Amino acid sequence: MGNVAWIVVPSGDAISTISVPISSLVENEKFLKKRPCWIHFRRIDEATEEILKEKFLINELSLEDCKSEARSKAEPFENYIFLLLIYYDGGISRQKKLCVFWGSDFIITVGSRRLFEEAKKELMLEEIPFGEGVEKIVWLISSLIADKFRYVTDSLEEQSDDIEAKVFKEQSPELLEDISDLSYEILTLRRALKQIRDTYKVAISLSGKFANPENIHYFRDLLDEISILYDRAETLHEFIQNVLNVFSSLVNFKLNDIMKTLTIFVAILEPLMFISSFYGMNVKNLPLADSSFGIVVISFFMLLLSIGLLYYFRRKRWI
Amino acid sequence: MGNVAWIVVPSGDAISTISVPISSLVENEKFLKKRPCWIHFRRIDEATEEILKEKFLINELSLEDCKSEARSKAEPFENYIFLLLIYYDGGISRQKKLCVFWGSDFIITVGSRRLFEEAKKELMLEEIPFGEGVEKIVWLISSLIADKFRYVTDSLEEQSDDIEAKVFKEQSPELLEDISDLSYEILTLRRALKQIRDTYKVAISLSGKFANPENIHYFRDLLDEISILYDRAETLHEFIQNVLNVFSSLVNFKLNDIMKTLTIFVAILEPLMFISSFYGMNVKNLPLADSSFGIVVISFFMLLLSIGLLYYFRRKRWI
Amino acid sequence: MGNVAWIVVPSGDAISTISVPISSLVENEKFLKKRPCWIHFRRIDEATEEILKEKFLINELSLEDCKSEARSKAEPFENYIFLLLIYYDGGISRQKKLCVFWGSDFIITVGSRRLFEEAKKELMLEEIPFGEGVEKIVWLISSLIADKFRYVTDSLEEQSDDIEAKVFKEQSPELLEDISDLSYEILTLRRALKQIRDTYKVAISLSGKFANPENIHYFRDLLDEISILYDRAETLHEFIQNVLNVFSSLVNFKLNDIMKTLTIFVAILEPLMFISSFYGMNVKNLPLADSSFGIVVISFFMLLLSIGLLYYFRRKRWI
Amino acid sequence: MGNVAWIVVPSGDAISTISVPISSLVENEKFLKKRPCWIHFRRIDEATEEILKEKFLINELSLEDCKSEARSKAEPFENYIFLLLIYYDGGISRQKKLCVFWGSDFIITVGSRRLFEEAKKELMLEEIPFGEGVEKIVWLISSLIADKFRYVTDSLEEQSDDIEAKVFKEQSPELLEDISDLSYEILTLRRALKQIRDTYKVAISLSGKFANPENIHYFRDLLDEISILYDRAETLHEFIQNVLNVFSSLVNFKLNDIMKTLTIFVAILEPLMFISSFYGMNVKNLPLADSSFGIVVISFFMLLLSIGLLYYFRRKRWI
Amino acid sequence: MGNVAWIVVPSGDAISTISVPISSLVENEKFLKKRPCWIHFRRIDEATEEILKEKFLINELSLEDCKSEARSKAEPFENYIFLLLIYYDGGISRQKKLCVFWGSDFIITVGSRRLFEEAKKELMLEEIPFGEGVEKIVWLISSLIADKFRYVTDSLEEQSDDIEAKVFKEQSPELLEDISDLSYEILTLRRALKQIRDTYKVAISLSGKFANPENIHYFRDLLDEISILYDRAETLHEFIQNVLNVFSSLVNFKLNDIMKTLTIFVAILEPLMFISSFYGMNVKNLPLADSSFGIVVISFFMLLLSIGLLYYFRRKRWI
Ligand SMILES: [Mg+2]
Ligand SMILES: [Mg+2]
Ligand SMILES: [Mg+2]
Ligand SMILES: [Mg+2]
Ligand SMILES: [Mg+2]
Ligand SMILES: [Mg+2]
Ligand SMILES: [Mg+2]
Ligand SMILES: [Mg+2]
Ligand SMILES: [Mg+2]
Ligand SMILES: [Mg+2]
Ligand SMILES: [Mg+2]
Ligand SMILES: [Mg+2]
Ligand SMILES: [Mg+2]
Ligand SMILES: [Mg+2]
Ligand SMILES: [Mg+2]
Ligand SMILES: [Mg+2]
Ligand SMILES: [Mg+2]
Ligand SMILES: [Mg+2]
Ligand SMILES: [Mg+2]
Ligand SMILES: [Mg+2]
Ligand SMILES: [Mg+2]
Ligand SMILES: [Mg+2]
Ligand SMILES: [Mg+2]
Ligand SMILES: [Mg+2]
Ligand SMILES: [Mg+2]
Ligand SMILES: [Mg+2]
Ligand SMILES: [Mg+2]
Ligand SMILES: [Mg+2]
Ligand SMILES: [Mg+2]
Ligand SMILES: [Mg+2]
Ligand SMILES: [Mg+2]
Repeated sequence: MGNVAWIVVPSGDAISTISVPISSLVENEKFLKKRPCWIHFRRIDEATEEILKEKFLINELSLEDCKSEARSKAEPFENYIFLLLIYYDGGISRQKKLCVFWGSDFIITVGSRRLFEEAKKELMLEEIPFGEGVEKIVWLISSLIADKFRYVTDSLEEQSDDIEAKVFKEQSPELLEDISDLSYEILTLRRALKQIRDTYKVAISLSGKFANPENIHYFRDLLDEISILYDRAETLHEFIQNVLNVFSSLVNFKLNDIMKTLTIFVAILEPLMFISSFYGMNVKNLPLADSSFGIVVISFFMLLLSIGLLYYFRRKRWI
Repeated sequence: MGNVAWIVVPSGDAISTISVPISSLVENEKFLKKRPCWIHFRRIDEATEEILKEKFLINELSLEDCKSEARSKAEPFENYIFLLLIYYDGGISRQKKLCVFWGSDFIITVGSRRLFEEAKKELMLEEIPFGEGVEKIVWLISSLIADKFRYVTDSLEEQSDDIEAKVFKEQSPELLEDISDLSYEILTLRRALKQIRDTYKVAISLSGKFANPENIHYFRDLLDEISILYDRAETLHEFIQNVLNVFSSLVNFKLNDIMKTLTIFVAILEPLMFISSFYGMNVKNLPLADSSFGIVVISFFMLLLSIGLLYYFRRKRWI
Repeated sequence: MGNVAWIVVPSGDAISTISVPISSLVENEKFLKKRPCWIHFRRIDEATEEILKEKFLINELSLEDCKSEARSKAEPFENYIFLLLIYYDGGISRQKKLCVFWGSDFIITVGSRRLFEEAKKELMLEEIPFGEGVEKIVWLISSLIADKFRYVTDSLEEQSDDIEAKVFKEQSPELLEDISDLSYEILTLRRALKQIRDTYKVAISLSGKFANPENIHYFRDLLDEISILYDRAETLHEFIQNVLNVFSSLVNFKLNDIMKTLTIFVAILEPLMFISSFYGMNVKNLPLADSSFGIVVISFFMLLLSIGLLYYFRRKRWI
Repeated sequence: MGNVAWIVVPSGDAISTISVPISSLVENEKFLKKRPCWIHFRRIDEATEEILKEKFLINELSLEDCKSEARSKAEPFENYIFLLLIYYDGGISRQKKLCVFWGSDFIITVGSRRLFEEAKKELMLEEIPFGEGVEKIVWLISSLIADKFRYVTDSLEEQSDDIEAKVFKEQSPELLEDISDLSYEILTLRRALKQIRDTYKVAISLSGKFANPENIHYFRDLLDEISILYDRAETLHEFIQNVLNVFSSLVNFKLNDIMKTLTIFVAILEPLMFISSFYGMNVKNLPLADSSFGIVVISFFMLLLSIGLLYYFRRKRWI
Repeated sequence: MGNVAWIVVPSGDAISTISVPISSLVENEKFLKKRPCWIHFRRIDEATEEILKEKFLINELSLEDCKSEARSKAEPFENYIFLLLIYYDGGISRQKKLCVFWGSDFIITVGSRRLFEEAKKELMLEEIPFGEGVEKIVWLISSLIADKFRYVTDSLEEQSDDIEAKVFKEQSPELLEDISDLSYEILTLRRALKQIRDTYKVAISLSGKFANPENIHYFRDLLDEISILYDRAETLHEFIQNVLNVFSSLVNFKLNDIMKTLTIFVAILEPLMFISSFYGMNVKNLPLADSSFGIVVISFFMLLLSIGLLYYFRRKRWI
C-alpha cells in the first residue's frame, strides 16, 4: 500500500478531511495550496521528503531527526518550529514518535494515525476550528500526548502500589525481578518526561514567532501538567528505591526467623541427645542405670530441661 | 442541596457576610457589584463557572485547573493572579485544594468551608478589615495554610522520633512497614512544600500587579516560614533514610547474636556427644570402660571440656 | 525580675554601658536619644515591643520572627536590616537565637546576655569603639557566632573520629545508636550552617545601605569562614555515612567468622560422631569390633580424619 | 618513518588530497598557501609545532594541550577556535584524542589517520565540498565522533542487559567483578560524554566567529545527539547501580534458601536421632524395649513425627 | 634563626635573588623599592606583618587569613589580589598553604621554601623573566601546585586500583579499614580541588585588574587542568563507593559458601548418624540386626544415601 497524506482544512465552521496518495500530491499541487491547513503523514518516504523540502521548505536536518531520533526536542527554523515528541501509548514498551512542523499557517504532523484521528476528533469539537490559529492544533495534539503520559504514570503508580503490598506479604526472586523491571520503567518514564518538559519550555519560548500571545496560556497550562507528571515520576522513583530497600531488609529479617527456628531445634534437642548418649556409654557404674526408676528420673529431667530451654527462648521473645 | 456562595464585604470598620444560593447570584447581579469583596464557593459547578467567566473574566484554563489539578501553582492573567494551593488538613492522607482568584479589588476562593471560616475569623480581628487591600486576605489564608503545613511537619517529626526510639528496642516487619509508610508521607510532604514554596516565590514576583508594595513584607515572611518547613522536611527525609539503614544494621546485628547462641550450643554439646558416642561403641578394650571409677574420670573430663569451651567463648566476648 | 536593657554608647575613646529597667525606658526617653548606640535586650516583652515599634520603627513582622522563628534570615526594612541568627552554644542540643536590628546609627540585639558580654568585651578592645560605624559591632557579634559554630564543628569532627576508631574495634547496638545520633547532629549542623551562610550572603548584598563600603571586607571574610565550616560539615556528613556503611560491613564480616567457627566444629565432630555411632550399632559382624586392637585402629582413623579436616579448613584459610 | 601531513583542498567540485613529508612543508611554503584547506597530522613533533606556530599562529598552550591533555575542551583564540575532542574507538579501553584548529579558511586536525580518512570520504560525498565553508568539515568529523560514542553506548547498554539477565540466573564473584568493571566503564563514558557535550555547547557559542550562521543548525543537531547519549549513559548508570543492588538482594535471598535446607535437615533428623539415642540408653525398664512389637511402634512414631515436621515446613512454605 | 625574605628582581635578561633578614628589611628600605619584584617569606611574624602593612598596604584581614585559614580563596583588594592556595605535597596527610599577594608590579608569596625554589627555577627558564608581567610568576607557581595535585590524584587512583584488585582476592577488616581511609582521602582531595578550582575561577574574573589580557590564556588553561583533576576525583569517589559496595556483596557471597559447606556436612552426616543410632537402640527385633550380612546391607544403604545426597547438592550446583 502506498503512503497516504491526510489533509485537514477549514470548511465553513467545520473542517473537511481528504486523504490523498503521496503520488497525487506530487503531481497535483492544488492540495497543498489551501491555507490554513493541517497535513498528516504516517511516515516519511522519499516522495514525502521531496514535498516537505520543496513545498514547505523543511530543513533536511529536521527530516533526518524525524526518521531516526528518539528524544523529544524543539528547534526553531526560519519558517517553522520543529517539534519531535516521544510518548508512550499505553505502556513503556510502546514508545511512539510524533514530529510536528509548526508554521505560521500550516501544521504538518508525521506519526501514528491513531493520535491523528484522536486529535482531529478534538478539533471538530472546537467552536470554530482553525479559528484560533494553527497553534490550537499543536495544543490539541500535545494535550493528547500529556494524557497518554498521565495514563502511563497512573499505571506505573498502580503497579508500584501493588508491588509494595506484595513485598510485605512474601519475598521471592520473581518479585525482585518485577521490582527491578518496574524501577527501570520508572527511570525511563522520568527521563522521557524530563525531555518533553524541556521541549515544551523551549517551544513556549519560541512560540512568540507563530502563536497568538493570548494562546500562550494554553501551553503554560500544558507545561504545568507535564511538570506534575514529572514530579510524580520523581517521587515514584524514590518510592520504588525504598521498596527495594524494604525488600532487602525483609529478606534479612526472614533469615533471622529461619535461624531462630534452627537454633531452637538444636538447642533443645542436642542437650537431650547428649544425655541419651551419656547413658548409652558402655561404661560401668552409670548412675541410676541399674535403678528400676532410673528411666523415670532421667525422662523427667529431660522434660524439665526442655521446658527450661523453651522458657528461655520465650523470654528472649524468639517464640 | 444547592451550591452556596459566601460574600464578605466591608461594613464600616467591621465586615458583613451573606450567603447566597448560586441561583440567586445568577438572577440578581447586585450581590456581585460591591467592591472590595471576598467571595467563597465550596466547589465549581456549571452556574458558578458561568458567573466567574462572565462577571469576573476568569479564564477557562484556571477553572479547569481548579476542578482537576493537584499541584500548587501561581499564574498571572490579565485581571487576576490565579493561585492553586494544595495543603494537608491534619495529615498526609487528607489532601485539600484551595483556589484563589486574586484581583485588584476582589478575592474569590474555592475550597473547604472550614478554611474559609478560619480565615474570616482572622479577618475580623484586623483593625480595619479590607483596610490594607485584598492582598491581606490572601495573606491571612496563606498563613493558615502554612500553619496546617507546620502541623503536619510537626506530626511527622514526632512520628519519626517515636519510630527511631522503637527501632532500637525491637525490630519487626510491622515496624519496617511503619517506617516505609512514614518515609512515603515525608516524601509527599517534601514535594508539596517544594511546590507551594515555588508557588509563593512566583506569587511574590507577580504581586507587584495588585498588591501594595508595603505589603510584600508579609509575603516574604510567609515564604521564609514555608522555606523553614521545607528544610525540616528535607532533614526529616534524611533522618528517616538513616533510620531505615539503622534498622537494617540492627537486624544483621541480631542475626550475629542468634548465630552465636547456636554456635555455643553446638560447640559445647557436640564434643560431649562425641565422647559419649565413643564410649557407646560396641568395641573391645575401650579405655577406662571397665574401670569402676571410669565414669567419674569421663564425667570430669567432660566437665573440664565444657568449662574450657565456655571460657573460650567468654574470651571471644560472645557471652 | 523585670526585663532590663543594656545600653552601650561611646564615651570618648572608650565605651560606657548602663543597664536600665524597661519600665524606666518607657518613661524616660533620654536613654534612647544618644546615637550611635547599641542596645541589648534579653527577650522581647510587651513593653520592649512598644519601644522598638515606636522609637525605632521596627516592623511587627520582625518582632514576631524574633519571638517565634528558628531559622537564620536577613531581611531589609526601610530603616534597618533585620538579622535573625541561630547558633549553637557548645553543642547541638543548645540552640540559641540572636536577633539584630541594624540601623544606620543604632544596633539593637535581642538574645543571650553571655554573647552580649563577650561582644562588648571585644568592642572595648577596639582602638576607637564605634569609630568604624555600628557595622563593626555586627561584625564582632557575627565573629563570635562563627567561633561558636567552629567549636561545635570541631567537637563533632572529634566525636566522628572517636566513633570511627571504635567501629573497627567492636560493634554493638549502643555504638550504632551513637553513630545514628551523631549523624543527626551533623545533619542539623549542616542545615544551620547553610542557613547562616545564606543569611550572611544576603546581609552582604544589603549592607551597602548602612555599612561603610570599606568594611565589607570584614563581612566577606566572615562569609569565607562560615563557608569553610559548611564544607567541613558536608565532608563530615559523608564521613559518618561511610562509617555507618563500614559498621554494616563489619557486622556482616563478623557473621562470617561466627559461621566459620560453627562449621568447623560441626564438620570435625559430626564425622567422628558418625563413626562412633556406627560402631555403636547392635548389629553382628561389625568389622574390627571384636579385634583386640580394633579400638586403636578406629581411634587412629578418627585422629587422621580430624587432622585432614583441620588441614582442609586451614587451606581454605578459615583457621 | 618521518611524520607526514595530508593536505585536502577543493579541486573544482571535488577535492584533491596530497600527502607531504613535514620536512618538505618546512622548505616549501606553497603547500600551505592554498585556501580553503584542511591539513591533517598524525602527531605533533617539533617540525610540525614550528609550522603551526609560524604559519598558522597557533598558540603554544593549544599545542601543549594537544600533546598532553585528556579532556575535551573548546577554547577561542584570536584567529582560530581550538577543539580538543576525546572519544572512544570501539570500547572504553581505546581512548583517542583529536585536536582541531578551526580558522576562518583552514581546518587543521591532529590525531588518528583512520578518523581522517573516514571524514574525508564523507566530505567527498558532499555536492560541493568546501562549498559551505570549512565548518562543514568540523561538523563531518564531529558527526563521526558522535557515531563512535553511539557505538560505545549501544555496546555498554547491550552488556548491561546481558549482565542483568545473568544476575537473575546465577550469582558468582566473577559476575560481580563484571558488574563492577562495567559500572566503571559507564562512569567513564558518562564523564566523557558530559565533557564533550559541554565542549560543543561552548563551540556553538563561539562559532559565530568563523561559521556561517545558517550552518549552526548542524551543530545544534549534533549537540542534541550527544545529549541523548549523555541521557542514556545517565540512565545506564542508574540501571547498573540497580543491578548491583539486585545482585546483593539475590545473594541474601539465596542464603535464606540455604538456611532453610539446613534447618529442615536438622529439624527432621535430630528428633529422630534423639528417639534413637533414647532407646540406646543402657538403662533398665525402657518402655517398649522388650516388647516384640516395640520396634514397629517406635518406627511408626518416628515416621509420624517426620511427616508432621514436613507438613509444618510445608505450611510455612519452606518446601 | 631569624626569619628571612628572598627578593627576586630582574637583572638584564636573567634574574637575581638576594636573601635578607627581616630585621634588615625594616631598617633598610632600598630592598623593597625595586619594581617589578617577587618577595618570598617563609612565614608571617610581627616584623613581616609590619612591612606588609606599611610598605605594600596589605590588609590586616589578608594577613590573618594567611596565618590561620585553611581553605583556598581569592579576594580582591584595592591594590592587590589576595590568593590563599591550599595544596598537598606528596600526600593528603601533607597539607600545605601558600599565600600570594598579587599587585600590579609586585608578587609577595608566603609559604614553603621548596615551592618557592621550584618556581624560581621555572622563572629562570623563561626567555625574559618578568617580561610578561608579574602574573607570569603567579602562573608558574599555580602550575606547580596543579602538578602537585595531579601527583596526589594519580597516587590515589593507583591506590584505588590496588585496593579494588585486593577486594576480589580476599576480604578482611584490615582491607575494609584501608578502603575507608582511602575514601576519606578522596573526599578531602575532591573538596580541596573544588575550592582551588573556584579560587582560580574568581582569580580569572579578577585578573583583568593587574594582568595583561593576553596572559589570561595561561590561567584558563590552568583552570582546565584543575577541572580535569576535579572530574577525576569525582569519578574516583564513585569508584571507591562502588568498591565498598562490592566488598559488602563479596562478604555476603562468602557467607553463602560457608553455609553451603555447613549444610552439606550436616545433610550427609546426620542421616547416617540417624541410621546408626537407630541400630544402636536396645530394642528387640531390629530388622537385619541378627542377620550375618546385615552390616553389609546397612553399610551399602548408607553409601547409597550419601551418594544420592552428594548428587542432589551437585545438581543444585553447591559443589
Ligand atoms: Mg536522567
Ligand atoms: Mg530524583
Ligand atoms: Mg531524595
Ligand atoms: Mg530521585
Ligand atoms: Mg532518598
Ligand atoms: Mg527513598
Ligand atoms: Mg541505597
Ligand atoms: Mg522530589
Ligand atoms: Mg539535604
Ligand atoms: Mg534530600
Ligand atoms: Mg544523606
Ligand atoms: Mg542520612
Ligand atoms: Mg538540608
Ligand atoms: Mg555532600
Ligand atoms: Mg551532602
Ligand atoms: Mg558530595
Ligand atoms: Mg558519596
Ligand atoms: Mg562516603
Ligand atoms: Mg547507603
Ligand atoms: Mg563525573
Ligand atoms: Mg538520572
Ligand atoms: Mg546519575
Ligand atoms: Mg538511583
Ligand atoms: Mg535505580
Ligand atoms: Mg546507590
Ligand atoms: Mg564536598
Ligand atoms: Mg559525578
Ligand atoms: Mg556523580
Ligand atoms: Mg553513583
Ligand atoms: Mg558507583
Ligand atoms: Mg548504596
